[in-house]
Amino acid sequence: MTDKSISQTGLPADGPETSSEKPAGLENSVGRTDLKSVTFGEEDGPLQLESGSALSPITVTYETYGTLAPSRDNAVLVCHALSGDAHAAGYYGTGAGEKPGWWDILIGPGKPLDTDRYFVICSNFLGSCYGTTGPTSVNPETGRPFGLTFPFFTIRDMVEVQRLLLDHLKIDTLLAVIGGSMGGMQALQWAISYPQRIRGAIPIATTARMSAQGIALNEVGRQAILSDPSWRDGKYPEDDPPDRGLALARMIGHITYLSEQSMHRKFGRRFVNGNGRSFNFSSDFQVESYLHHQGKKFVQRFDANTYLYLSRAMDYFDLEDDYGSLEEAFTGCRSSFLVLSFTTDWLFPAGQSQEIVQALRRLNMDVSYCNIESDHGHDAFLLSGHRMGDIVRGFLGRLMKGERP
Amino acid sequence: MTDKSISQTGLPADGPETSSEKPAGLENSVGRTDLKSVTFGEEDGPLQLESGSALSPITVTYETYGTLAPSRDNAVLVCHALSGDAHAAGYYGTGAGEKPGWWDILIGPGKPLDTDRYFVICSNFLGSCYGTTGPTSVNPETGRPFGLTFPFFTIRDMVEVQRLLLDHLKIDTLLAVIGGSMGGMQALQWAISYPQRIRGAIPIATTARMSAQGIALNEVGRQAILSDPSWRDGKYPEDDPPDRGLALARMIGHITYLSEQSMHRKFGRRFVNGNGRSFNFSSDFQVESYLHHQGKKFVQRFDANTYLYLSRAMDYFDLEDDYGSLEEAFTGCRSSFLVLSFTTDWLFPAGQSQEIVQALRRLNMDVSYCNIESDHGHDAFLLSGHRMGDIVRGFLGRLMKGERP
Repeated sequence: MTDKSISQTGLPADGPETSSEKPAGLENSVGRTDLKSVTFGEEDGPLQLESGSALSPITVTYETYGTLAPSRDNAVLVCHALSGDAHAAGYYGTGAGEKPGWWDILIGPGKPLDTDRYFVICSNFLGSCYGTTGPTSVNPETGRPFGLTFPFFTIRDMVEVQRLLLDHLKIDTLLAVIGGSMGGMQALQWAISYPQRIRGAIPIATTARMSAQGIALNEVGRQAILSDPSWRDGKYPEDDPPDRGLALARMIGHITYLSEQSMHRKFGRRFVNGNGRSFNFSSDFQVESYLHHQGKKFVQRFDANTYLYLSRAMDYFDLEDDYGSLEEAFTGCRSSFLVLSFTTDWLFPAGQSQEIVQALRRLNMDVSYCNIESDHGHDAFLLSGHRMGDIVRGFLGRLMKGERP
Repeated sequence: MTDKSISQTGLPADGPETSSEKPAGLENSVGRTDLKSVTFGEEDGPLQLESGSALSPITVTYETYGTLAPSRDNAVLVCHALSGDAHAAGYYGTGAGEKPGWWDILIGPGKPLDTDRYFVICSNFLGSCYGTTGPTSVNPETGRPFGLTFPFFTIRDMVEVQRLLLDHLKIDTLLAVIGGSMGGMQALQWAISYPQRIRGAIPIATTARMSAQGIALNEVGRQAILSDPSWRDGKYPEDDPPDRGLALARMIGHITYLSEQSMHRKFGRRFVNGNGRSFNFSSDFQVESYLHHQGKKFVQRFDANTYLYLSRAMDYFDLEDDYGSLEEAFTGCRSSFLVLSFTTDWLFPAGQSQEIVQALRRLNMDVSYCNIESDHGHDAFLLSGHRMGDIVRGFLGRLMKGERP
């Protein structure tokens, strides 16, 4: 394998972190971070995927925050969601107004994933478009991007690639694996695939199997992409991708990430510019222009084929079908579990978390559960202002002390 | 105005109705029905629409079931939803396997809208594509279909056209106006626009103002149509309409019509043909092929431009904004109200019906309310197997007796 450090800042990746270099308002930030990468499968053989294909080489991008203890027992793996990346906390230092990593509310000195105590790892998962090998990567055999020739992969395959990274980092046992949404699926799969290698699993706002409604919503998003003439059977050039289809898919996604309540509070029926009804088909309502804005932003940072693959990997996630039943799936698990859902999440409703909890309880496993009050819908797992942080902090603290939380 | 009877059967519209002529299994059916039509605005001047435009002529298609009492006080107006039509009950007699009208469960001899007692009218609303004047109609000034040159119209305008029809039928006072979803919006608007002309209003599975989430879902459907290259700024030829976009819009719609529970029960995660994962982007899951089927069926019977207009009319429905507040909207009402919602309807959640009920109660109006237990989501109002029929029957019976229900 090859290992390198990528600085996305143009500044030395290992440069000193002084408070004067941090963007403004960075109390409790991990500060400047940089994206690292490692490549597997060059000498060590290809990865066998669940779909039957073999893939090699596989480059993985990742970030780490905090310090690995000499006993190597304080590592926490953070798993990102569909459109996320390895940049979970801190800043690249790219300039004023730069947004911090996507879970900066949770990761940093003194924060729930306390980087003074824990060594936090976040890797971009297999098949994504943020540096880890996926449909946008160049196929070494053809010299062209894989596109739809990329092999199909599953949540289980993503976990295999994360396991390769942990082997590379010489971390035998994780204190915990934590993730929301598709990241929560990975946390569940970790507990099942590598029971001896994790002490705690924290699946948040997720499910043990994608629901019919979830599959249906994903399929509409996929059809929006497949119907875009610019998609061209997946062989679109970089400068003319199927932006309209991908934006539509993202608009549908955004509706499912918010709750009816949060949409009402955020936008209500307010008109754009307060002009009232235009009597045409432009964006009259703020909620419409918000969705268009989200769609436009997304196509600048995401890839349409990747969206197809990732949504399919979610659809295929089904621990019941894979193992016979939820109980059989969890039977060999040895970790403690903290399962969290949010009261207004309708994409992964609380009932789906409760199915996980009930199966674990029937097996007499160590599981804590909280359905957290929030009116932010599915997106709540990315936001502060509710009890998630404190609950995670307490669970990790007890794990670290060696108590069963 | 011109009046004519349209037979869609090829059989005499006024032919005898004997049981031997009814399709099989037609107990309690109104039997064979035929579509009538009347045209307004030819001599009586154009209709002034809320958008500021004037429209003339306006043809309205409608059906009637039962007999108008000599006292002309037993008429019930049925308002259909977005993709509905005037054919609410009975059969055209087009052949074996013919589906009855869309609310045949409710309308017929001995049924809740008892055609032995009531004279039931259902008209295709303004702007639809089932015979009443709308975007697919030929603009008499150009000889070509209106398409996007059709003026914008609102729920209030639909009610005006229904009122023209009632004037034509010489029905001064309706026993009740009943409708679900967009039809419920019309029922509410009737109670407000013509308080002296209706005795009961039965809005079902509806809202007094389209929510931000509802507008968002409509907008995604519209964008799917507008993004289809076959849409051609609305000037598509009849033989090459924007089918992919319209099918996508319908797929989104269908997800919102079902509940998570009913999708789970209907499809779960069952694979097509039981073949398991295909590891490609075809329809692996039954829920996907169901949605595709619904999309394909819909484009054979509906028009894309019409979908744009009707979804916009829903978005614009806002009794609060139109009248200052819900209380002010209902202040002049004189009818009794029966408000019904369904427990798993997430497109028009029970809370939105309860807002209507609370406003009416604050005004000391006569209102009955029931949140009906059903796991069929929004579609429940089109289905039997729950209490809707009995509740409607009781309400109408008491209205007919002159009691305040």
